[in-house]
Amino acid sequence: MHLLINGFSGSAVSANIKYTGHPDLGLIVSDEPAVLAAVFTRNEIKAAPVLAGLDRLSRGEPYIRAVVVNSGNANACTGHDGLIHVHQICSLVAREMGITPEDVMVASTGVIGQPLPMRRIKNAIPALVSGLSENGLEALADAILTTDTVRKTAIRRIDVGGVKVTVAGMAKGAGMIGPNIGPPQATLLSFVLSDAKVDQVWWQGALERTVTETFNRITIDGDTSTNDTVLAMANGRAGNKEIDAVRYGEDFEYILKDLLQDLARQIVKDGEGVTKCVTLIVKGARTREEADRIARTIAESPLVKTAFFGEDPNWGRILAAAGRAGFPLDQGLISLFFDEIEIVRMGVGVGEEAEHKAKKVMTAGEFRVVLDLGLGSGEASILTSDLSTDYVRINADYRT
Amino acid sequence: MHLLINGFSGSAVSANIKYTGHPDLGLIVSDEPAVLAAVFTRNEIKAAPVLAGLDRLSRGEPYIRAVVVNSGNANACTGHDGLIHVHQICSLVAREMGITPEDVMVASTGVIGQPLPMRRIKNAIPALVSGLSENGLEALADAILTTDTVRKTAIRRIDVGGVKVTVAGMAKGAGMIGPNIGPPQATLLSFVLSDAKVDQVWWQGALERTVTETFNRITIDGDTSTNDTVLAMANGRAGNKEIDAVRYGEDFEYILKDLLQDLARQIVKDGEGVTKCVTLIVKGARTREEADRIARTIAESPLVKTAFFGEDPNWGRILAAAGRAGFPLDQGLISLFFDEIEIVRMGVGVGEEAEHKAKKVMTAGEFRVVLDLGLGSGEASILTSDLSTDYVRINADYRT
Repeated sequence: MHLLINGFSGSAVSANIKYTGHPDLGLIVSDEPAVLAAVFTRNEIKAAPVLAGLDRLSRGEPYIRAVVVNSGNANACTGHDGLIHVHQICSLVAREMGITPEDVMVASTGVIGQPLPMRRIKNAIPALVSGLSENGLEALADAILTTDTVRKTAIRRIDVGGVKVTVAGMAKGAGMIGPNIGPPQATLLSFVLSDAKVDQVWWQGALERTVTETFNRITIDGDTSTNDTVLAMANGRAGNKEIDAVRYGEDFEYILKDLLQDLARQIVKDGEGVTKCVTLIVKGARTREEADRIARTIAESPLVKTAFFGEDPNWGRILAAAGRAGFPLDQGLISLFFDEIEIVRMGVGVGEEAEHKAKKVMTAGEFRVVLDLGLGSGEASILTSDLSTDYVRINADYRT
Repeated sequence: MHLLINGFSGSAVSANIKYTGHPDLGLIVSDEPAVLAAVFTRNEIKAAPVLAGLDRLSRGEPYIRAVVVNSGNANACTGHDGLIHVHQICSLVAREMGITPEDVMVASTGVIGQPLPMRRIKNAIPALVSGLSENGLEALADAILTTDTVRKTAIRRIDVGGVKVTVAGMAKGAGMIGPNIGPPQATLLSFVLSDAKVDQVWWQGALERTVTETFNRITIDGDTSTNDTVLAMANGRAGNKEIDAVRYGEDFEYILKDLLQDLARQIVKDGEGVTKCVTLIVKGARTREEADRIARTIAESPLVKTAFFGEDPNWGRILAAAGRAGFPLDQGLISLFFDEIEIVRMGVGVGEEAEHKAKKVMTAGEFRVVLDLGLGSGEASILTSDLSTDYVRINADYRT
């Protein structure tokens, strides 16, 4: 799978932002103005590039040409200087490319609370711009990684009124992954590029809706980041009839959701120290909201996550986590499945044989846990992970 | 410090409930009827002894003679059989002691979802009762431990109108420690014994209020248990004038809170894999409720807890956790201290020297973290722990 999208190019260089010699500065460029959609973290503590991005959205400028991304430094909790640095980067890249600073956006990921090494970034920008090529998007997808161990990309094609349109995505994220509910919100860095011609209002709405159903439904450690950003650019190169809410929008949104779900799953599977990727489904709740809250409580329970790591179908921990989510339950109505294996029926354990089978299910890297509360028709699903000794090791060491 | 309280005796034997040869069945007896106060978990999934205890409370029987406690099996998610087993234990102990089953309560801790080994428990009861002695309360304090590594006891004396009164406590709890807010609620097993003469209504209120301020303000993993129980017995042996809300109540409650806080701190220090015991204070919030919710979010953040473990004063993670608690913050007003060391001022890092000093603070087993939000006068404090590789190891292995 090659990341080639009509009219887009990419580039990455090493600016020695945190480590020496590792690519950590990337650039995405659209040959012509692309329609922008964006969602950002809802954390009250927002990184400078997020504040700048929100400010830009509030001014309603619909077109964008370039996105600069750095890893190794979040430019968060950096005060007024942090915002100045964002604007300096926009200006430097714009000057080098012969465009205006308003055509450029910035996204950052890495350590919180340290000033960006602006001289090193400035020195790297000429090579960053001169290195642009249509084959360069994969290099960018590598440069944005932090504790990730593998590149995360996905691509889809769709027919829009007889015209082939492409949409592709890149993402990074392995820790500080724990979204809250409701758009506009994201949980990581992700860039969506398409050669589709799109209506701007629809494009923003489609991104918000699909992020809510995908990136917002994963959790690794429940810690929402200060820097979460999803930027989507559509440059119209494919020459299709414009996509909006009534024309082709539904089909395109289906493909977009599938693309983001693919990236979301890649993120959980490559989460810090993750050995298990678990689809947790809570059904039979009174409402969808209750199912969602219960699913998130289970998905973030340290005892549940360590049991996943230990391949122990310790269903008592799952029921106990459900029971502390804040909603009335009827213990006697609850059943629980690991894939197809029922291990709890009417609130009590089915028996040793079922547990043995469930334990076997857990030896796989991916499995499903289905909790049926027996109370109603509310249902929600969350993609979660285990909590391993490696997660602790990575995060006890991360800054040093 | 000897656990001797006028008119109380204790005993412990091995009933081979989970492991062989380890004391796992204990008994507390008051020579005469003691005034009962009790608080239980608010988890929706309640163990059988908790359901039986709540049922007893609702019937308003104020006196109790004996408490049977077992470790190794929680008797939770055990259906109707679980309740029958609680009543059988009460009957067996009552018959052996020559009292009525209504004089006896049961508390359990251990694995969820397995039936109690009733034959082994029944066989152990004669030795349990015959082993009672006034020196036996420490043996009981040992028998109730699960993943705890040390016995947790505390004792206080107070003068009540010229009469010396004693109050003592025992506790267990190392994992599944993460209370919710509001009485009546507890977070572990704890037994409070006093020779004071008390008014029953005041005694129950005093226990609820002090548990809210102590056991409910600690967290190890945020996972509220199905079995949390605090039982308090006051047998009146000291011969003091009855304590109630207007006579001596305030003084006694002060001592009771101090006792429970002592036990609470012992629990966090001995938490599963814990190497750091951190007093986290959030102040300058708009309200106490907001301060409390923000403190709990920080105290349960895996990234904050792993940074504690790594002795990394990674303040960005603390601010990020505060920012996702669901309340508006003003980044530019925030300051943060490790003990006396200010490392964040007006939302930005103070500098490397301050971080070095903060890192030194963290090498101690206990320290304070103070987050000042600069918004108002709301303040709350939580006693929390780090998250270590050992926590994961213990909980990935616990059942097997």
